[in-house]
Amino acid sequence: MTHRPIRLGMVGGGTGAMIGNVHRIAARIDGEYDLVAGALSSTPEKSAQSAAQVGIAPDRSYTDFEQMAQAEAARDDGIEAVTICTPNHLHYPAAKAFLNAGIHVICDKPMTASLQQARDLADVAANSKSLFILTHNYSAYPQLRLARELVAAGHLGAVRLVQVEYAQDWLAKPTQTKQAQWRTDPARAGAGGAIGDIGTHAFQIARFVSGECPQKLACDLTSFVPGRRVDDNAQIMLRYASGAKGSLWCSQVAAGAENGLKLRIYGENAGLEWSHHDPETLWFTRLDEPAQRLRRNGPGTSASVAQTSRTPAGHPEGYLEGFGTLYSEAAAAIRAANAGAPVETLLPGIRDGLEGLLFIDACVRSNAADSAWVEVAP
Amino acid sequence: MTHRPIRLGMVGGGTGAMIGNVHRIAARIDGEYDLVAGALSSTPEKSAQSAAQVGIAPDRSYTDFEQMAQAEAARDDGIEAVTICTPNHLHYPAAKAFLNAGIHVICDKPMTASLQQARDLADVAANSKSLFILTHNYSAYPQLRLARELVAAGHLGAVRLVQVEYAQDWLAKPTQTKQAQWRTDPARAGAGGAIGDIGTHAFQIARFVSGECPQKLACDLTSFVPGRRVDDNAQIMLRYASGAKGSLWCSQVAAGAENGLKLRIYGENAGLEWSHHDPETLWFTRLDEPAQRLRRNGPGTSASVAQTSRTPAGHPEGYLEGFGTLYSEAAAAIRAANAGAPVETLLPGIRDGLEGLLFIDACVRSNAADSAWVEVAP
Amino acid sequence: MTHRPIRLGMVGGGTGAMIGNVHRIAARIDGEYDLVAGALSSTPEKSAQSAAQVGIAPDRSYTDFEQMAQAEAARDDGIEAVTICTPNHLHYPAAKAFLNAGIHVICDKPMTASLQQARDLADVAANSKSLFILTHNYSAYPQLRLARELVAAGHLGAVRLVQVEYAQDWLAKPTQTKQAQWRTDPARAGAGGAIGDIGTHAFQIARFVSGECPQKLACDLTSFVPGRRVDDNAQIMLRYASGAKGSLWCSQVAAGAENGLKLRIYGENAGLEWSHHDPETLWFTRLDEPAQRLRRNGPGTSASVAQTSRTPAGHPEGYLEGFGTLYSEAAAAIRAANAGAPVETLLPGIRDGLEGLLFIDACVRSNAADSAWVEVAP
Amino acid sequence: MTHRPIRLGMVGGGTGAMIGNVHRIAARIDGEYDLVAGALSSTPEKSAQSAAQVGIAPDRSYTDFEQMAQAEAARDDGIEAVTICTPNHLHYPAAKAFLNAGIHVICDKPMTASLQQARDLADVAANSKSLFILTHNYSAYPQLRLARELVAAGHLGAVRLVQVEYAQDWLAKPTQTKQAQWRTDPARAGAGGAIGDIGTHAFQIARFVSGECPQKLACDLTSFVPGRRVDDNAQIMLRYASGAKGSLWCSQVAAGAENGLKLRIYGENAGLEWSHHDPETLWFTRLDEPAQRLRRNGPGTSASVAQTSRTPAGHPEGYLEGFGTLYSEAAAAIRAANAGAPVETLLPGIRDGLEGLLFIDACVRSNAADSAWVEVAP
Repeated sequence: MTHRPIRLGMVGGGTGAMIGNVHRIAARIDGEYDLVAGALSSTPEKSAQSAAQVGIAPDRSYTDFEQMAQAEAARDDGIEAVTICTPNHLHYPAAKAFLNAGIHVICDKPMTASLQQARDLADVAANSKSLFILTHNYSAYPQLRLARELVAAGHLGAVRLVQVEYAQDWLAKPTQTKQAQWRTDPARAGAGGAIGDIGTHAFQIARFVSGECPQKLACDLTSFVPGRRVDDNAQIMLRYASGAKGSLWCSQVAAGAENGLKLRIYGENAGLEWSHHDPETLWFTRLDEPAQRLRRNGPGTSASVAQTSRTPAGHPEGYLEGFGTLYSEAAAAIRAANAGAPVETLLPGIRDGLEGLLFIDACVRSNAADSAWVEVAP
Repeated sequence: MTHRPIRLGMVGGGTGAMIGNVHRIAARIDGEYDLVAGALSSTPEKSAQSAAQVGIAPDRSYTDFEQMAQAEAARDDGIEAVTICTPNHLHYPAAKAFLNAGIHVICDKPMTASLQQARDLADVAANSKSLFILTHNYSAYPQLRLARELVAAGHLGAVRLVQVEYAQDWLAKPTQTKQAQWRTDPARAGAGGAIGDIGTHAFQIARFVSGECPQKLACDLTSFVPGRRVDDNAQIMLRYASGAKGSLWCSQVAAGAENGLKLRIYGENAGLEWSHHDPETLWFTRLDEPAQRLRRNGPGTSASVAQTSRTPAGHPEGYLEGFGTLYSEAAAAIRAANAGAPVETLLPGIRDGLEGLLFIDACVRSNAADSAWVEVAP
Repeated sequence: MTHRPIRLGMVGGGTGAMIGNVHRIAARIDGEYDLVAGALSSTPEKSAQSAAQVGIAPDRSYTDFEQMAQAEAARDDGIEAVTICTPNHLHYPAAKAFLNAGIHVICDKPMTASLQQARDLADVAANSKSLFILTHNYSAYPQLRLARELVAAGHLGAVRLVQVEYAQDWLAKPTQTKQAQWRTDPARAGAGGAIGDIGTHAFQIARFVSGECPQKLACDLTSFVPGRRVDDNAQIMLRYASGAKGSLWCSQVAAGAENGLKLRIYGENAGLEWSHHDPETLWFTRLDEPAQRLRRNGPGTSASVAQTSRTPAGHPEGYLEGFGTLYSEAAAAIRAANAGAPVETLLPGIRDGLEGLLFIDACVRSNAADSAWVEVAP
Repeated sequence: MTHRPIRLGMVGGGTGAMIGNVHRIAARIDGEYDLVAGALSSTPEKSAQSAAQVGIAPDRSYTDFEQMAQAEAARDDGIEAVTICTPNHLHYPAAKAFLNAGIHVICDKPMTASLQQARDLADVAANSKSLFILTHNYSAYPQLRLARELVAAGHLGAVRLVQVEYAQDWLAKPTQTKQAQWRTDPARAGAGGAIGDIGTHAFQIARFVSGECPQKLACDLTSFVPGRRVDDNAQIMLRYASGAKGSLWCSQVAAGAENGLKLRIYGENAGLEWSHHDPETLWFTRLDEPAQRLRRNGPGTSASVAQTSRTPAGHPEGYLEGFGTLYSEAAAAIRAANAGAPVETLLPGIRDGLEGLLFIDACVRSNAADSAWVEVAP
């Protein structure tokens, strides 16, 4: 930290929202950012109140993100980057506004509320010098980074199977919390319920670790809770161009599941298993050898992965640290971009976001076709 | 054990076969059987040698099960029951021979090598006074019995999701062991590879615990190992008449998996989780309450389930005890049948066997139709 | 099993006693014994009733073990071995009677009710051609056998630490079950409560795996339950002649503990961890290497240890299988002894029994001396 | 955060030190502090270099903490609080200097290098209006807070047993890292090696959760690594005035252990178990009821404990979050103290620090007396 913190703005994430606080902690944990501007809520009063609570000066608390993008771009001390953590339907217009204003964007997933928006945003980003970073935070967990390296280095041989799941129970009952409301409203969430909110995370880590994007999928969507207008459960089968197969299950009605993201990858010669319940452990088993318990920052890690740890093995790190790593790597990328240097990063971006919307779109199409196989095609 | 042991015969299960020894231990563990006759192998020499090793008198060691059925039926001290643990293709003719000879049958799964054989055997059994018991041994595990009771008693509310999997890695490489050979030979195994060998187990415990048989399934079968003539992996989606959904994954190429049978059932109000890796624990979680760790023979069990335990909680029981319970319950059923008393039992039988073949058949049909939904219909 | 079963008798273990049934299952599981005689209870009625239930002929149901020893020794078809599973105070006279009658003895632990009895029994055994086998069943668990081999082969380097514990909660409240009564009665249990009943098991596996018997111990005994006349909890520190240190904790009042035997051994170069809660796993960690999960009958086992498995890895075996292995190895030893062949075995015997009583005696002496270090000396 | 951050200084914790970075993250995570001054290292060059790296202005980088205390106390914008994370022998003089200068102190454990220093510091603190907070961070873990509440509310009944352990392996070999050097140098670490570095943590959480400080202990200290001048392993037995018993084991040579802090407390009616390996889970078992898995911020938590969580259950939090909670609660206490309001807090302070040194002293005295029981007396 021999450099000054990056000036950061935030759109969405008012003080009642769980994810807003997560973003702020993630931005603070390594001291790489100063949060100096925001359009935190949709109403002027809430926005001002939230701004005061998080230490944003009144004159830099906005109610309109378009206005914020213009105003901040015009200031000498304007924000260099913005976090977008609104409901899904605002991701696209907000991201577009800031990218066009020359401000780097750190955006929540799914990237947009529709596939068309995703394609459009990809064009916007391609024509902007600013970076677009998507907060698929799980891919910043050290043991998933290590898993990716083991696959890439060939330790599994050809990948045969990718089994990924993400189970929660917080929407098992009809619920009226603010966070539940927009996530179950197609106008704000987009076409996907569980598949958009958590399915895209599962899809992304499977793709990140395996190195492969499925070619086809067959999907059965369900809305278990009476009156629910989006899916709250999805059974999905996957086929890869390489011949690998897989399955993805995501659910928000799995009574007893907390935040159960789990990935298993099996190759010709070895298998990997990782669970968010114990995120510091990566199980690695070569055929005919004992399973190895690879621990964060412990024996068997790599130099590159060790950089994502803040403490020795045995000092549990987790969700906030992973999110923080994403933010700190974003800071490094932003500094490189600002300096005109090449940006080399593992961070998820436009491609991941587009793939996520392709995934959602393919799920919806397959489900409409009675679970027929459909292409997950660009 | 105030009664004398039941006289038992065995077809298949020569001393080289893992499963033959399992059956013998299961028959011995509670002292309910005497093994007195057998056609243990396909060649006279091996059959005689195996018979000697397991204590069967030479004059009751047969090479042909038809002959054995006739000869034993004719003896005053002839066997009362027979275990059939041959490769799959012999289940049907052997079971038919013994049922027709008035000898109770304890038969390995899958019940037959084809759906037609299963239907025929169902007719044979319907016309026989002898019992037919299928060794879906996992349904005798106490904590799966308890799970079934919790579902049946309504503690979960309406079942929404049934997630079941069975992963192994012992066929991950081309292999030439005797056990691998017949299991990967369609002429002896039947149309199913992994779906027949382990998929039927997964299917049966899901059905046993949930109380529901899926109405439809969509299946993607794969043979990963070059040259393999049967599936070694299956991805399956399930739909129930009640509106419940599910998935079933079985694999024999999941590097690092030992014998990973796992069942999760989620209802409106609560969820259950059981894994063969720790079979003495059933996780039970009501929405908004802490998860409960229900242990075999511990607090929270029921009187009926406690009868299937031999030791207090904390004295690990497992595979052989579960198999033994199946045998001991079979002994009780056989004694009841012999006495002309009504046979009330949770043991799997013809219905389970037929459903297993319907499952295999539906998997094959769906797979041939590019994973289209097909009926799992009688 | 090309040989006939060994004729077995039993003293104690009437049908109400948990441990009697365990012994009978253990004797049956591999088919190595026929139970043909017994003095199962202290009253003629109960003894006869129990005998009938376990299939012992009325003329071989005794009420007095002295008489049984005489009568059986006099028969051509008399028992070759006897199981003694009475309360502790009867171990010595019963074992003496059978050893003197030329009958092999399989005896529950602790070996005797007093150190003096243990010394006397050692003399009796030394002058008998019959074998004396002590049912420290835990030392027959495959993964503790493997642990012992790893230590003996030097994979840990010099042993530094031996941490062993055995926690239960079944005596946490004043209780009046038959099994609780004699175990908390010094006249029948001997001087030790928890230290005798479970502490000796913990002591024995630590000694079995590490290869070392502690030289000194310091002990603090407690009787937590009001009115209890024996210890129900013990804190013990251990010192070894080699310089190693250790601790042993045993408790029967640890609310929530089932049957929590756990052993950890640390050497200069590596460490081992085993827990009865998951007895099929031995954790082995070399310094600066990932932990290895060594599974029963899986990669990393040895040929000698594999012989103690009945099924492949992933088919849970446990308490009854371990107990059964002890019985089956006893059968092999008995056959060797009967044939005049050398008896090579890992089975616990007189030495272990004497060490167990030395342990109890040292605990009592140290406790009486305000936990001063005392010798655990022969 | 409607208030401005507290101005913080730091003594020790130069950029090579693991714990310095932990303190800085903990101070940042909730945005409650600005780090503005420091004496980070013992040499001017390193101190300046570290200051630059962590964003401290050159004119507020000191090389002498006495000078820093004077200078900062004299500034209008001087630090309000200071973190002391030096080797142990500097805790006392540094804490004294800042307390006397009217600056709140957040100090690493053990509180001082000797019992006499601890007594002296207690006097200093008693005569200062400034707060003294000791970073026994583990007592800020939510599930240990919950454990404490369950004990205090009487859910366990009278406490009988306190079993605590803290095992590591990072000093299993002779090692020359900077952190290892001072920790194994009695001149800098004080009389305790493992007992000071990690034993005090174990002691403190046992005391924090149980609500009781042991009255007596018996201790056996060992230095396993050749040439080591302090203990690297301790076996300790505990006696409480209430009649409860306990044991404490700490080791830095337990090959395979990472940072294995574990606490188990057993009462008349229920038991608790917590392990740092899975810090988000507290096991709670009432006698004769199934074990409950109490999860951070999940069902069964309390309102007061929930305040220490930043995310919903299932989003793993750990070491840095617990440390951060300690810092944030310290900020609240500092603000209350600055406002002249009463300071109500669960934070460890002088009393805990003094008890920690009494513990170390008692261990050393008991060890010198061949493990005799000694008082842990003020």
